[in-house]
This record gives sequence, structure tokens and C-alpha cells, in this order.
Amino acid sequence: MITLDKIFKPKSIAVIGATPKRGTIGHQLLQNILHFGFNGMLFPVNPNYQYVNSIKCYPSVLSIPDPVDLAIIVVRKELVAHVADQCGEKGVGGLVILSAGFKEVGGEGIKREEEIVQLQKRYGFRIIGPNCMGISNSDPNVRLNGTFAPMEPGDGSLAFMTQSGALGVAILLAVQKRNLGISHFVSVGNKVDVGGDDLLEYWGNDPRVRVMGLYLESFGDPRRFTELSKKITRHKPVIVVKSGRTAAGSRAASSHTGQLAGLDIAVDALLRQCGVIRVSTLEEMMDLVLALNKNPLPKGGRVCILTNAGGPAIMATDAAVSEGLTMASLSDATCDRLGAFLPEEASLNNPVDMIASAGPDEYGKSLEVILEDDGVDIVLIVFVPPMLVEPREVMKKVAEARIKHNKPVYAVLMAEDRYYDEIPRRFDNAPPMYRFPESAVRAIASVNRYRQWCERPTGTVTTFASGDASVENIVHRQQQAGGGYLPPWDVNRVLGAYGFPVCKCEYVPKGEGVASAAEKVGFPMVLKAQGKDIIHKSDLGGVIVDIRNKKTLREAKAKMDKNLKAAGVWDRVDGFLIQEMAKPGKEVILGMTMDEKFGPLLMFGMGGTYVEVLKDITFRVMPVTDVDAHEMVREIRSYPLLEGVRGDERVDIEFIEESIQRLAQLVNDLPDITELDMNPVVITPDRAKCRVVDGRIRVAAPKANTNES
Amino acid sequence: MITLDKIFKPKSIAVIGATPKRGTIGHQLLQNILHFGFNGMLFPVNPNYQYVNSIKCYPSVLSIPDPVDLAIIVVRKELVAHVADQCGEKGVGGLVILSAGFKEVGGEGIKREEEIVQLQKRYGFRIIGPNCMGISNSDPNVRLNGTFAPMEPGDGSLAFMTQSGALGVAILLAVQKRNLGISHFVSVGNKVDVGGDDLLEYWGNDPRVRVMGLYLESFGDPRRFTELSKKITRHKPVIVVKSGRTAAGSRAASSHTGQLAGLDIAVDALLRQCGVIRVSTLEEMMDLVLALNKNPLPKGGRVCILTNAGGPAIMATDAAVSEGLTMASLSDATCDRLGAFLPEEASLNNPVDMIASAGPDEYGKSLEVILEDDGVDIVLIVFVPPMLVEPREVMKKVAEARIKHNKPVYAVLMAEDRYYDEIPRRFDNAPPMYRFPESAVRAIASVNRYRQWCERPTGTVTTFASGDASVENIVHRQQQAGGGYLPPWDVNRVLGAYGFPVCKCEYVPKGEGVASAAEKVGFPMVLKAQGKDIIHKSDLGGVIVDIRNKKTLREAKAKMDKNLKAAGVWDRVDGFLIQEMAKPGKEVILGMTMDEKFGPLLMFGMGGTYVEVLKDITFRVMPVTDVDAHEMVREIRSYPLLEGVRGDERVDIEFIEESIQRLAQLVNDLPDITELDMNPVVITPDRAKCRVVDGRIRVAAPKANTNES
Repeated sequence: MITLDKIFKPKSIAVIGATPKRGTIGHQLLQNILHFGFNGMLFPVNPNYQYVNSIKCYPSVLSIPDPVDLAIIVVRKELVAHVADQCGEKGVGGLVILSAGFKEVGGEGIKREEEIVQLQKRYGFRIIGPNCMGISNSDPNVRLNGTFAPMEPGDGSLAFMTQSGALGVAILLAVQKRNLGISHFVSVGNKVDVGGDDLLEYWGNDPRVRVMGLYLESFGDPRRFTELSKKITRHKPVIVVKSGRTAAGSRAASSHTGQLAGLDIAVDALLRQCGVIRVSTLEEMMDLVLALNKNPLPKGGRVCILTNAGGPAIMATDAAVSEGLTMASLSDATCDRLGAFLPEEASLNNPVDMIASAGPDEYGKSLEVILEDDGVDIVLIVFVPPMLVEPREVMKKVAEARIKHNKPVYAVLMAEDRYYDEIPRRFDNAPPMYRFPESAVRAIASVNRYRQWCERPTGTVTTFASGDASVENIVHRQQQAGGGYLPPWDVNRVLGAYGFPVCKCEYVPKGEGVASAAEKVGFPMVLKAQGKDIIHKSDLGGVIVDIRNKKTLREAKAKMDKNLKAAGVWDRVDGFLIQEMAKPGKEVILGMTMDEKFGPLLMFGMGGTYVEVLKDITFRVMPVTDVDAHEMVREIRSYPLLEGVRGDERVDIEFIEESIQRLAQLVNDLPDITELDMNPVVITPDRAKCRVVDGRIRVAAPKANTNES
Repeated sequence: MITLDKIFKPKSIAVIGATPKRGTIGHQLLQNILHFGFNGMLFPVNPNYQYVNSIKCYPSVLSIPDPVDLAIIVVRKELVAHVADQCGEKGVGGLVILSAGFKEVGGEGIKREEEIVQLQKRYGFRIIGPNCMGISNSDPNVRLNGTFAPMEPGDGSLAFMTQSGALGVAILLAVQKRNLGISHFVSVGNKVDVGGDDLLEYWGNDPRVRVMGLYLESFGDPRRFTELSKKITRHKPVIVVKSGRTAAGSRAASSHTGQLAGLDIAVDALLRQCGVIRVSTLEEMMDLVLALNKNPLPKGGRVCILTNAGGPAIMATDAAVSEGLTMASLSDATCDRLGAFLPEEASLNNPVDMIASAGPDEYGKSLEVILEDDGVDIVLIVFVPPMLVEPREVMKKVAEARIKHNKPVYAVLMAEDRYYDEIPRRFDNAPPMYRFPESAVRAIASVNRYRQWCERPTGTVTTFASGDASVENIVHRQQQAGGGYLPPWDVNRVLGAYGFPVCKCEYVPKGEGVASAAEKVGFPMVLKAQGKDIIHKSDLGGVIVDIRNKKTLREAKAKMDKNLKAAGVWDRVDGFLIQEMAKPGKEVILGMTMDEKFGPLLMFGMGGTYVEVLKDITFRVMPVTDVDAHEMVREIRSYPLLEGVRGDERVDIEFIEESIQRLAQLVNDLPDITELDMNPVVITPDRAKCRVVDGRIRVAAPKANTNES
């Protein structure tokens, strides 16, 4: 496959559809390329002109005498395929198609897009678009602004991809406003070829790119995204704004796990497992890019606030604590050193309030002292300019003071707009500056969570010995029979094969006596009616628990028969299950639901009302490592119940972690299972007494036209 | 008391400490007053000059020949008291003291502030400050800019009070940036006299004020604030940024309710009960002021989004749904009318996506059609300017289209900064404009919640017949004995007097037989050890439940004696309680903890692990109305458990609501109770079977130097 270098580092560009008409995309695009100073040859292509912008214009790409690496196409939608065909013939390496009127408009547009796809397959060139606003690369060896946006992308280390062309301008505006610069900008449009994954990979290998920002509306291939981003995020932060959060998941599912897993849960789980930072808004993303741009990562989460005013420092403290940062404790030595030069009225505890009289010197000296304190990982400067104190001078001293220390410093400057422009331009080491304490702290907290991700062990996927390879056949047989729920004995065999402690269970067909089955299971036991169409058994009187001897078993059986007859379901009863009664313990739920796009979603939560009413659950996509399992158990709100409250004994939490990993192995081995619930699993302090009380497994219907067995 | 008019509508002002020296507060202040065009007489006062800024300067306020309404004082801290004394002698009505160096610096400063307080008492003038940045009033009849901020307050309908002087400039900047204007600005400083409550009252009565904004660090008198703001918010929105959210509450309390009620819970409860809109940041406040400024309140929460681009419309939809707004369903007629002129590719469902080709006419016509749909309460315009379409023209058509309709219209404009400045100035009816979908939607949602507050019934405080006036004596007696927990029988008498269904209970001193007491209570019953220092009874084996007959009672008693002896606490046992055993049901907790500043905080939540682990609880300050009680029950996450899940019967929820109101009456009648817990209260479907199973009441220690009985 041709490398994306042909698109991002072309030696020559053809602008097909270039025109001297002002106010057209073809004109603006050419202007942008010229104005940004492209390091290479530029060939306008348009049969109607001999020259455009004083540059010789060619009637078609085929008539250009030199080789062409990149063609940017802005012709009418009807002509795009024809032009692309010529590009193929010419041997062009990359196409950026700005023209709209393809899949996004439906109907004829879909056909037009299919033609492009075919041409891509035939010639092998790479395509960005169609229906996009272009690309840029600020590499000094390239200097390509191939967009029709009315502003320049600047020069910086943020690579940005947007799925919405319309947001492109807003993004470039936001970047410009914060004095950030962009290394690459790509509006991917309809993504007939190049998508987010390709860009992640390409940018991951480009040393000019320090931070990646993605605006996503959908995922191309979640598994590839997972694989790529897990590696990349360990050394480069990836920030995502993903919209479509509340779109009601269309999955029609009958299992608990399925009902509880909304579309966005998969996205959230995936991004978290990949160390991708998810933000809600573009504004938040820009605040975060600013924070990452000018600072090293912190070594820890202990923040010290240095201020000349109480109010905003309180706001910053509030925000820091609620975002999960720690307020640093300054050492006595630090306080003594600060006290030596700060006025008596100053507060030497964190937040260090130097009071309104503090000028550039106080800021510079205090910052140095604080940065030398080993108990401080991060410093947040708050500066409200009083009269006669010049923000420039204060920030100059701050920039000087921090240069010797490899610790992140951020600033909240509550001043006129012009300073946000001027200060970063004048002082290279000026800290990232924010207008409000809350936005600064939110960015700091995100950076800190990213640091935790980088420090987190990668974890391993454990493989447990599977006891019974024949369970594959069970699933296969069910699928051949049209799919659907496995009968309880098969559920137990599948779960048992993966080491789950299922309750001992015997099946007795209707009409036969239950005594011998009861002997095998032992007391106490549970009696359950069994029949394909019998649901809500409990409501029908079809479940009787805690049967302690033969006599009560006989009575229970008689009562249940009566119940089922009274409920009018006797004809649908096939038989009865006699099941071992689990010891009391904490009930949890483990489950899996198959997402068409994201693959299996694993769920863990507390059982009973915790899962049903409070939705106290958590999800993961595959693969699930030991570290993931460890974190899952601890991130539900009711986790303290497992540790034991009110004198309760701690249950075997490690058993839960292992079970999550066993479940991951099961769903990985048996991909035709589409839903699985173990609800409840009773967890006790003693691993030997833990039991899966009830399990449900649903198998997919046979696929049409498939070779899979 | 002198009215605040002397401060806000003075006919003459003395600036004491006026000086021609540039770069001083005394100079900037005088410049600001002159530049804003004060409608009245201005007298500089300074013994060192004969004139300042070409205006005759007086050596002291006493030498001014005319009456002086307002003195703004910027002299050295040591001179403030002397100058204030002269103001009193002169008969000045109001003082604004900018000078710092008072209570905020401690030590001598506290004494200096006390002097000012004494002078205020002697002369009765009103004071703002000291240690503040001044006041403003943009009323055309007044035109007073009595601040030393480097920018003008503009003219508008927002009255703003800040407790932090340092934030004053940031606030004025933020207001200016959004083209908002201010009616009044007050930096209250140390609040020796005028505080937030006075300003709320004053502004509540000023028809020029449409919205009030407060930046608070602490509450003066929460009860007065409650009273005032409850009335005002019904016709004028009050928006508060309250900092100090995470300050660890210093209350040392042993009750559940006390431990669960952090400092901020009181603030949150109070603000919500008063209809005050609490926001997290100044930015959010400004977005909200903008939203309120240019629009009527909506009639409902159904939003329609009108856009020319998919991406930002998805972001807006996401935000709207997660903020609790409803996406409006457009009528067929509306869709037909839109379809008649919009291109085929447009999406006529909400969000209405007119695609990128939409220009001013499409925006104008579509907006008119949508505003005429009765199913739409609010319209959010999203406009991403494509090439050749001028944002001004689009917003002009939008402004024209909305004029005929009394429905709120908001806009997200993703364009260069200059348009945010220019459009509102050119078109009076331009909608409030935001840069990002999320900030627009957040503001819309806040306005919608405010509308719900205005429509919410005020509710009534119910008074129940109290059965036993002598309970006052019980509390009094305990207080005289040094305060502390009431014994169980007294708890039952107090609760019983207020109509709570306490469990039947008999006390048996150690050594006496339990048989006759058991007869009075009846089976099943609970046996509990009783002794002042015996806590964690259950752990010691001091609680045995579900005793069903005389024989098991005898056995239980023997076993408990053994347990208590084995635990080594036998000597501390005073006797035994025999208590009626409650029927099974849902356990809830009702409680109260006394906040020194906010008064009683009432709590409701689900009992057991729900309260302990999940903190699924809610609080109210007094007074608590029937509407409050109704809302409290419904706002806990586990409310569905009370309605009945998995076939459970609905419990008597109205009984809980009544109990909350009874509790409110109890704590109102018996103010010396500092903590009260009913945990658990068992609630069943049948009101007659509901029971308070365990109650604790703590009485305050006697107050020193008090006449209260």
C-alpha cells in the first residue's frame, strides 16, 4: 500500500479545479497553498484557464510534465470519478477530494462514492474524503495548507483529525485563539479510504507530533483502534471528543447485561482501556492541549496553589479536590523560607496567599522555593493583577523561575485578552495560562490521570486450563438448531468447563420421581420448574428454596405442581430442576453482551437491586487483563460491601477478579455466544463456597453465507 | 435605618483621598467617576491639594459647603476611622471604604474594623467595605462608576455582588466580553454593614434589575437569605457562584445524619429550596445571564435544533438530552412546510439539518415555520459559516424571524470573534450567541430549570396535632443534666408525641424478670441490652431478634446474659429492653442534624447499606413544605425500590412524606435537639404496620449566659 507520505509530504501537488474566481473553494484552496509557502511544485489543473494566479494551468492532470504526488480535487461531483481515473493513470500517490455530493446525500451519491472506491482498489492510491475540508502539514520541509479554511493552521505539535468538516473552522479558530499550533490537520469526510486508525498510526511514528486530537462521530474498526491506541497512548496523549453519546442503543437484547450496556458504554470502556483521554467539548480539548504543550508530565498529583488573592484560590482548591487532585503539604523548611520574605499577613499554607501586594519578585522567589519542595508535583499560579503590577513582569519572573525545574507549572491570569496573546509570544517558558481557575484545574487533572495511565502496568491476559473442549460442540449444536438459549444443564457444562463453580443440579422429567435426583444433589436444595416457555418462574410459584429434607421436598413438589396448574402453565412444564442451595454471601452479577461493532462487552456489578435499580455496574471491551479485572471490581460504588461493612467479613475478591478473566477467556473461545449472564454469583469469604446460582447463555443464529463452523 | 439610595443614588459624592498622582487608586477612582459622567456633584477631599482634575479640592469633608450623600474613602488605613467620624458629623448617608488593612490582616486590623463598626452604630450611616473595590450604578439618572477597575461597567440589567474584590476585574471583563451590561456592581469587602441580603432586597425592588449575580464565599444570615430569595426568585433569577464547596465540614457529630451532612450540603439544599440557580464557574454564570437577557422564559423544555451542519448538531443533541431537555417532535404540518422549500438532502426531523447550502433565507424561513409549531418551546440555531455566506446576514434574518414569536431562540455561531461583537450591536433582536453547542445547551437547561421553579407550587408547612406537650420537659431535663442522648423510653415518648409509630417497648431493670414486660409487648419481639456506655450492642451479642414465644424468650435472655458476661460488659448493663418486632418492609432513614449557621438539616434516605455505602440521601433546610417532602422522597436514586420492583408491592410513600413533615415540626418545636436519627424506619404497604425501629435523640448542653428555659 502506498504510504501516507504521498499525501502529507508531497513533492508536487495538482489542484484539480483551481480557478481564479474569488469566493470559490478552488480559489481559496490555491491561495492557501501559496500563502503558507508550500515547499514543492504546485500545478493548477483546469481546462478553462491557461494560468491561474500567474501559474501555468494544465487542462488535465495527464498533461502535467512532472510526476504528481498529491492531487487535491475540487471539481463538480459528477466529474470526480473521471478526474480520479486520470490521477490513477498518471500514477498520483494520494487524492484529497473536497467535492461533496457522495454517500452523505444518499441516492445517486452512494453510486458515485462506490465508483471512487473501485478506482482506489484498481490504482492503489490513498484517498482522503470525499466531502471534506482538506488537510495541512506545518513541517517546515513541507508547509502544506491544503484546506479552504479562512485561517492558517499555525505551527505546532498537535495533530488533529475531524470527522465533521463543518467543525474544522471552529477547531482551527480555537487553536489559533489559544496560541497553539497544529502539526497536521485532517478533515476525513466520508472516509472511503483513510480513517482515524491510519492517522493514529502515521502520527504515532511522526516525532513532530506530540499530542493527537480526534473529533469522532463513529468508530471505523474498534479492534484496530484499540490495538493501535493502547501502544501510542503510552508515549503520546490522544484526546477524543466523541459525539453521539446519548443515541439510544439500538441493540435489542433480553439479558441483563445487554439491557444495561448502552452504545456509549462500549465507547467509554474502550477509550478508558486504551488510555485515550475523552473530553466533552472542543474547549476542554484545547485547554488540555495547552496544558500538555508547555509542561512535562507531573510525577504525582500533589498541587500547590500560589496566589495573590483569596477568592480565586478558594475556587481553584475546590476544583482541585473535586477533580481528585491532592493539595500538597508544604514542608516546614519551605514555609520558613517563604516566611522569610513574604509579608506577615501572607498565608504560608497551601494555597500560599502572598496577598495583593505581591509583585513579580514575590512570584518569582516563592515559585522557586515551592518548586524545590519534594512534596509538590504541580504548581498552579493564580494572579489577579492589582493596579500598578504589570502581568507581563509577573509572568516573566514565573517563566524564569520554572526553567530550572522539571515540574509542571500552570497559571490562571485574570486579565485583559491581550496578555494571553502577548505573554506566550514574548516568553518561551511562560506557563500555560487560563482565564478561570476551574478550566485550569480540569486540564491539570486530565494530565494527571494521563500520567497514571502511563504508569499503570499493562497487565496480562491470563489463560486458564479449560477442562472440557466438547463445550464448543454444545454451542455449535445450539447454533445449528437456530440459536437461542442453552438449556440449564448445557449452561452448567459450559460454565463448569471454564472453572466456574456452578451449583450441583439434576434434571427430572415431568412424571418421574424426584427422590433419586435429590439424593445426588443433597440438602438443602432448590426446586425449580423447567420448560422452554416458562419465564418469571418465581411469580408462578415455580421456584421453592431452602428445602432441607425429604419430607419438605415431597411437600414442596406437591405444592409446586398445584401452583403451576393453578397458573395454567402445567402443559408447558417439561420437568424439574433440583439444584444445590448456595451458602449465603454477597451476590454479584457477571455477564457479557455482544456488540456488533465493539465485540464482547464484559460486565461486572453487585447483584439484586444494586444492578436493577442503581445500575452500579462497569464494563470492559476485550481483551481484559488482570489489571482490568482488578480495576473493575474496585470501581463500582458498592465495592465497600465486598470489603465488608458493619463487621461483615471480606469476601474472596480475588475470586471475582479471576472469574472476570475466566469469563473473558470463555467469550473469546466461544464467539458464537451473544449473551451470557451469571446472576447471581454468590461470593463468600471462602472460595470453596462461592457459587454461580443462575446462568443464562444465548447462542447466535446460524450465519448466512459463512464458512465458520 | 438610612436607605441604600444614599449609596446607589447619591446627589453628591465626596472622594476622600482623591489625588492627581497617576497610578494610584485615588486617581483612578476620580477618573472613573468623571469619565462615566456622574449626574451630581463631585467633591475631591485631600488636605494636600487645592484642586484635583481641575475640580476644587476640600481639606476635609466637613469643609464641603453642600450636603454630601456618599463618601468614597481611599485614605491610609490609620486615617479611615478619623475620616469616617467626620463623615458622621457631616451627616453623610453612605460610606464606601476602599482602604484595606482591617479584619482581613488580623491583629491591629481587627481593632481598626471594630472602630468602624462603632462609628456605624453611632451615626447610622450605611457602609460598604472596607477592603473592597467599590460600587457602580448605570442608571442614566445616576451614572456612578465608583470603582477603581480599569474598565467601564457598561449599561445593562445584571446586578452583581462579589465577596472577593480580586475577582471584580475578572467579572467586569467577562461581562464586557459578552456584550452584557451591568446595572449595579458591588464589591462588598469585609461586610461590616451592607451584605448580600441587603443587596438582594434592594435589587429585588429595583425595576432596572432583571437578573442578580452573586459571588459568595460565605453566608451572612442563611435564614434571612432564605426568606428574601424565596420571594425574589419567583420573579427575578438569582445566580450564585458559591466557593468553598469542598471545605471539610468541621462539625464533629456522631449521628448518621450529622456525619453525612457536609458543609456544602446545607448550601446546596438552601439554594435549591430558594430557587437560586447555583453555577460552578463565572463563565457559566455569564453564559446564563446572556441566555436570560435576550429571551422570554420558555413555556416548556422541548427544544428544536436548526442547523446547517451535522457534527455540531449531534453535539448539541447529546448535550440537550443529558441536561434533561426534551428533543421536540415536529408536527407533520411543520415537516411538510419545511420540505416545501428545503433541498431534498435536508433532514426534516429534529435536528432540522438544512445542509451546508442553507443561507440567510433558509434560516429565516425555517425558523419562522418551527416557531409556529406548538410542539416547540425553545429553538437552538446552529450555524457554521460556509464560504460565501455572511454570518451577519444569517443572524439578521434570524433576528427578524423571531420578533413575532414570544419563544426563546438561542444560537451557536462557530465563527471569528468579531461577529460576537458586531452582530448584537447591529441587530437588537439577535439571539444570544455561543461559541460551542455545549455552553449554549447548559445555559438553556438552567433557564428551563428556573422556569420549573417559577411554576412549582410554593407548598405549605403542615402543622400536625401534637399529642403530648410534656415532651418539652423531657428535652429540658436532659439539657439541664448536661445534654446528651435521651434514654430509649424518652426517645419513644418524644417521637410518639409527634405521631411517629414507635415500636411498643418495655424496660426491665437488671435482675428483674422479663415475663410480665413480654406480655405487654407481645410476640414476636426483640430483646436488647441497655446501658449508658454499651455501644455496638449487636457485636457484643446484646441484640436478639424474632423471639416468638416464652420459651425462646427465656433461652434468649440466658444466652444474652452469657454473651454480655463473656464480653466483659456485664457491669455496665443497666437493664433490658423488650421491643415489638416490626413487620418486614423497606428500611428508610429519617434524621436531623443541627448546623450552627444553617439551623436544622433534615435528611431522608434508604436505610442500611444504601445510606452507609452508597450515600443515597437527600437534605433540606427549614422550613420544609409538603412539596419539599414530596420531592425529597423522589430524588434519591433508590426511589424505585419504594415504588416496588420485581413484583414488590408499593410501600406507603405518602406516609414517608408525612413523616418528613412531622419531623420538621418536631425539630422546629424542640430547638434544643441537636441530632436526631430514626434508623431504620420500616415502611410497608400498609401504613398501620410502619414502624420506627430505632431512634436516637441528642440534646444540646445547657447554654452559658442564656435566659432561655
